[in-house]
Amino acid sequence: MTAGGLFLTFEGIDGSGKSSQARMLAGHLRGLGHDVVLTREPGGSDGAEEIRRLVLEGDPDRWSAETEILLFTAARRDHLERTIEPALAAGKIVICDRFADSTRMYQGLSRGDLRGLVDQLHKLMIKREPDLTVLIDMDPETGLSRAKGRQGTEERFEDFGIHLQQKMRAGFLELADEFSDRFRLVDGNRDMDSVARDVTDIVMQAL
Amino acid sequence: MTAGGLFLTFEGIDGSGKSSQARMLAGHLRGLGHDVVLTREPGGSDGAEEIRRLVLEGDPDRWSAETEILLFTAARRDHLERTIEPALAAGKIVICDRFADSTRMYQGLSRGDLRGLVDQLHKLMIKREPDLTVLIDMDPETGLSRAKGRQGTEERFEDFGIHLQQKMRAGFLELADEFSDRFRLVDGNRDMDSVARDVTDIVMQAL
Repeated sequence: MTAGGLFLTFEGIDGSGKSSQARMLAGHLRGLGHDVVLTREPGGSDGAEEIRRLVLEGDPDRWSAETEILLFTAARRDHLERTIEPALAAGKIVICDRFADSTRMYQGLSRGDLRGLVDQLHKLMIKREPDLTVLIDMDPETGLSRAKGRQGTEERFEDFGIHLQQKMRAGFLELADEFSDRFRLVDGNRDMDSVARDVTDIVMQAL
Repeated sequence: MTAGGLFLTFEGIDGSGKSSQARMLAGHLRGLGHDVVLTREPGGSDGAEEIRRLVLEGDPDRWSAETEILLFTAARRDHLERTIEPALAAGKIVICDRFADSTRMYQGLSRGDLRGLVDQLHKLMIKREPDLTVLIDMDPETGLSRAKGRQGTEERFEDFGIHLQQKMRAGFLELADEFSDRFRLVDGNRDMDSVARDVTDIVMQAL
């Protein structure tokens, strides 16, 4: 646990339900009297949201994978400095929908083998890891159909289809092994309330 | 000399006249029949110009030094991929008004001792150095009064006054020593035509 606060992230493939679970957990913890900051990536601070728009809007090929990694790292640095670190220093619980693990997967794996570059950049400019990461594991086909059912103009990362979903699911499970000290796995192929109960149990243990 | 082309950069403090010299050199070389790409940083490609606006517009404190370095590196990566490398591969002469040396100075020195971070990021994400760098050396007070006489909404880097100008001038001279193989020094405290003659002599030798 981070001195003074708890830094908790949700990860998973598109359509895994992690954003809903993050919101439900935030509501639950607030109901118990905790001071909670609910945030997301890319984005989560004024500057990072501007960088998010720069990356996610427009032609998918407008940035190379390397430039995209740099832009996401710039957004994460701003988000850390302006939102996450001040909240943790004030003793709050920070719940973040996606963080560096998503960059390890989406930028590190999906557009070529750039995981090494992602890791070196993280080590140089970010350093911070979450205290606890909840991975909502989800059947790739179900996730894809859920993600497609949503509206949104910024969802271009969800346009890569079932092959990417399968690759990302396998990648996240490997990542959970690699960082087994902070990853906790939850089966997302159930009704939201059952998933939420598992998430709550895990987080209450960490608190 | 880069295989197939020549990558030439101009550096110097604000108001040193390097942008005018870059333009004059481009015109001279085109007159001799060379295929020249004249570009600038931050910017120089569609994406990099968008990042430039994000960094230079608005509140000077909106980005930390570290986030600013990441954004400039993202812009440089895009500029390299989309403008500089294709032109060099096609055998053209690329003349760039500011490049990585300006980041070594302005982001590396002016907002704290971040030169080490700038260098590590350059080594990881950019790698490329110019074949030849012309440093227009200029009296800091003269440069400042020239820069102040110009119009422009993006000129916030020029608002730091004489102390910064002196520090940057000294820093550029040290940088010219550090990279003495590619740096050439030109005295900018003279009329533009005399400066341009020296610049032309240096570049014709390199060609």
